[in-house]
Amino acid sequence: MLVNGKPQTTIALSDRGLLYGDGVFETFLCEQGQPLLFDLHMQRLQRGCQRLSLSLQDSAVIRQEIEQVAANKDAVIRVSVTRGERVRGYRYERTDMSFNRIVMRDDHRPSPSSNTEQGIALYLCQHRLPQHAVLAGIKHLNRLDQVLARSEWDSDYAEGLLLNDLGEVIEGCMSNLFVLRDNIWTTPDLSHSGVDGVMRDYLLGAASECGQSCQIDKLELVDLLEAEAMFLCNSVIGIWPVLSFQKQHYNSVQKVQPFMHHLHEKLSILYPAGL
Amino acid sequence: MLVNGKPQTTIALSDRGLLYGDGVFETFLCEQGQPLLFDLHMQRLQRGCQRLSLSLQDSAVIRQEIEQVAANKDAVIRVSVTRGERVRGYRYERTDMSFNRIVMRDDHRPSPSSNTEQGIALYLCQHRLPQHAVLAGIKHLNRLDQVLARSEWDSDYAEGLLLNDLGEVIEGCMSNLFVLRDNIWTTPDLSHSGVDGVMRDYLLGAASECGQSCQIDKLELVDLLEAEAMFLCNSVIGIWPVLSFQKQHYNSVQKVQPFMHHLHEKLSILYPAGL
Repeated sequence: MLVNGKPQTTIALSDRGLLYGDGVFETFLCEQGQPLLFDLHMQRLQRGCQRLSLSLQDSAVIRQEIEQVAANKDAVIRVSVTRGERVRGYRYERTDMSFNRIVMRDDHRPSPSSNTEQGIALYLCQHRLPQHAVLAGIKHLNRLDQVLARSEWDSDYAEGLLLNDLGEVIEGCMSNLFVLRDNIWTTPDLSHSGVDGVMRDYLLGAASECGQSCQIDKLELVDLLEAEAMFLCNSVIGIWPVLSFQKQHYNSVQKVQPFMHHLHEKLSILYPAGL
Repeated sequence: MLVNGKPQTTIALSDRGLLYGDGVFETFLCEQGQPLLFDLHMQRLQRGCQRLSLSLQDSAVIRQEIEQVAANKDAVIRVSVTRGERVRGYRYERTDMSFNRIVMRDDHRPSPSSNTEQGIALYLCQHRLPQHAVLAGIKHLNRLDQVLARSEWDSDYAEGLLLNDLGEVIEGCMSNLFVLRDNIWTTPDLSHSGVDGVMRDYLLGAASECGQSCQIDKLELVDLLEAEAMFLCNSVIGIWPVLSFQKQHYNSVQKVQPFMHHLHEKLSILYPAGL
């Protein structure tokens, strides 16, 4: 683990990431030490830094530190940027652009192959996301919503679905959602809630190459119950087709194959090959 | 500084307080090493722990650690409780009640005497608080709203006022608000946004002893512009009367005297004596 490039396993108690959740993070999947979707991750990291008036980060430095920590292995690497250490109080000096950059490694634990081959059971979370345009889209360190939502179910479900306080469908607890209706994949609008996922962005861009149509729009629960197929995605798990949700069953495994083949062939063998 | 009772200035990078803001905190004002309003602080801390399914804390241990760190001095002591160190992912085991308890000291820097003698200029923040009943009232570690709001103004204002996304008045950036109209002090309802302050709770309970009437209710901006007096409070600053807000001037310094005298005489000489 590195803090500002130095091997370190701890951080100062006065770090604003710990005091206030004042920072952003990214979780990179690395194949033999090389981060996948690096540019999209960096774009979101910089968007988050801009939104919070944090110092923009040097891509070359972050790539080098990820590679150092991943050490040529398949690994999941978390990069966090906090506003560094300051005096007591919410205030920070806008001219002071100091920060702490934390690079941590987790071993890569691939999810069960049944998640991709048979699809997953999707839980409907009772916890609702607030609407909050200023914080929507970015991956900041204030993640109590996800912690509370994730505590609602055990291992009988692979993922949970989050609605906002209006009842609109937003995302999975740690993933984004795509829903197939009338031959168009719709992924929810995230301008007021949710995290704008790197894999979601990638798939929106790659859809036509996969022979699929995608759009961003509002989604209600009823849209999901009438849908033909659904999948969840993020840059670590790749794609999980949804087998069942609220007593409905979906033909998702078949329908996601074009996306899965694309990821496996074009991006990395770490993403499941599909059927 | 102490972590779980041991002298320590750092914490593990895998602490969930740092990873997700998964925890709560309290800021105690200590007079010659003794924490003021200790029971009210502990009640809120336990409420927060309950809400987040964190381990309830031992009051005697926390008091002892505060006294140890305060070392008989006037001091501000922050006590944080995080969900401890875990594996990657939002999930935690509900049977695992481990935590990290952090006790940190700041020197006590009394605010300018003009804040209490002449009153303060109150800024109106553009940043809006989301409505979020599950997280409202408690003092959790997800404080990006306060960080963003506090970055809007410099030292020309002593505090900023926060509205929710409906435009209702909620609180100060680091304090609670009381507004005098028709001889009744009203403090905003915090069931959907805001932090239920320890000093606010104390003053609601002490009002009749101070010869004042208090109530909890919704407040709109127009109510503030038509008010006779206003003050902000928290357990570190005590009471700050509002001199000016949005081109209005208020007779707050006179009106807050009963409360200020009470705090100074009954609680601590660290709270300003008033006029």
